[in-house]
Amino acid sequence: MLIVAENINTSRKQVAPLVENKDKDAIQDIARKVTEAGAGFVDVNCGTFVSQEVELLPWLVSVVQEVTDKPVCVDSPNPKAMEAALAVCRGQVMLNSITAETARYESLIPMVKKYRTKVIALCMDDAGMPETVEERLNVAKKLVGRLESDGVSRDDIYVDPLVRPIGAVQGAGKMVLDTIWAVMHELKGVHTICGLSNVSFGLPVRKLLNQTFEIMCMTAGLDSVIMNPLDKQQMAQMLACEALLGSDEYCMNYVSAHREGKLELV
Amino acid sequence: MLIVAENINTSRKQVAPLVENKDKDAIQDIARKVTEAGAGFVDVNCGTFVSQEVELLPWLVSVVQEVTDKPVCVDSPNPKAMEAALAVCRGQVMLNSITAETARYESLIPMVKKYRTKVIALCMDDAGMPETVEERLNVAKKLVGRLESDGVSRDDIYVDPLVRPIGAVQGAGKMVLDTIWAVMHELKGVHTICGLSNVSFGLPVRKLLNQTFEIMCMTAGLDSVIMNPLDKQQMAQMLACEALLGSDEYCMNYVSAHREGKLELV
Repeated sequence: MLIVAENINTSRKQVAPLVENKDKDAIQDIARKVTEAGAGFVDVNCGTFVSQEVELLPWLVSVVQEVTDKPVCVDSPNPKAMEAALAVCRGQVMLNSITAETARYESLIPMVKKYRTKVIALCMDDAGMPETVEERLNVAKKLVGRLESDGVSRDDIYVDPLVRPIGAVQGAGKMVLDTIWAVMHELKGVHTICGLSNVSFGLPVRKLLNQTFEIMCMTAGLDSVIMNPLDKQQMAQMLACEALLGSDEYCMNYVSAHREGKLELV
Repeated sequence: MLIVAENINTSRKQVAPLVENKDKDAIQDIARKVTEAGAGFVDVNCGTFVSQEVELLPWLVSVVQEVTDKPVCVDSPNPKAMEAALAVCRGQVMLNSITAETARYESLIPMVKKYRTKVIALCMDDAGMPETVEERLNVAKKLVGRLESDGVSRDDIYVDPLVRPIGAVQGAGKMVLDTIWAVMHELKGVHTICGLSNVSFGLPVRKLLNQTFEIMCMTAGLDSVIMNPLDKQQMAQMLACEALLGSDEYCMNYVSAHREGKLELV
């Protein structure tokens, strides 16, 4: 399971002031901790600082890169900020995110090609967010086909089926599960990724729903996730899930985690 | 999700002395509690009292039935004890369990017909326990076909894919998931059921594995489970899973459980 650490994001109220005050030490402390906890990528997002994002995003990337060997996942709705950040990135960065919307695709694809990035591909096109599993799969096929024709290999594509809140959209959880399953079977070689927490929006005890949904998505085939690797309970469940799926050979990671005292939490 | 409460089983060390001392009050206390907690069936098993099972099992069934409206699930390897217990059962009992093994099938099918029971059907035949998903599905098809030709309706059949320990058998967890999925798709109308806890045998923090595996099995389509409904954490996760699968309309059960304080545990 590839973990993209969601922690360094200014929409989180603990993080915004760190970026505002350019508190390099505190930001680097988070970057170090998520790396130790098992992050494969460190997502970096300061989208709430709209007018300063073009300066702040490359600064934030540099600050993070000083203390971790893991590549960053550059997360921005602003192509100018994205380009400025990519210019300072080290290693094979992940771009968060492209869609099949014409304007967004065309503004981002030159950077994807120039910097040979990995890319999170949202199931969305000019018609908006598809309503059914079949429509989502069709958008995914169109987007993956287009990325491939632009030279991106399947192994660098992370399809995000788009998670909507089950409290507002009846069947939204099942639709994500079915989309993950369909994409992993019909677009062999691509990855799937989710930000899970949107699923529980508006409902009580969100942590319970988010944790449970992660297990469900992994069961459907999800192989990458945007999450908080400092959540020890969720990490323990993820290790259990990998052991049960058979992807943790001889349950060695699970047993090692137990020896290190990482499982006695649930 | 149909819950078969596993609690009244003399292989549990707290329960054996209650049956040995014919402590009716303590047994009825368990039966009441599991009923309140949401059991659809109450499993009754005193198989450890081998030589007395023919007398003890019907006694135990009667004791349980005095305090719950829920039907029992009669659980015995001994056809004589099974028959004696079925004779005192009220409501539509569940028989635990039949297989495609010739001798076992032939000894039990007359009772299944006479008492019109529901039946747990283990994926096992004279060749033993099948090794692959395909073989398991084939045994399930053979067994379901035979039960149907003996007049049992699909709605009364609960296929158990047989759970083996992932610590001993590489891929055992995934095989159960794939078998559940295959049975629910290729034998439409039958139910699937599991006793989950065997999956974690020999590994540390078994509760974490068992809980996680239940969510995974439900995601694959499992609609019935043999479990302890007094485990509040597992019950909370099950409610979350049903909400995420869309089987809890408008998340009403989930929200009600929250109001009753049943979710703040994980």
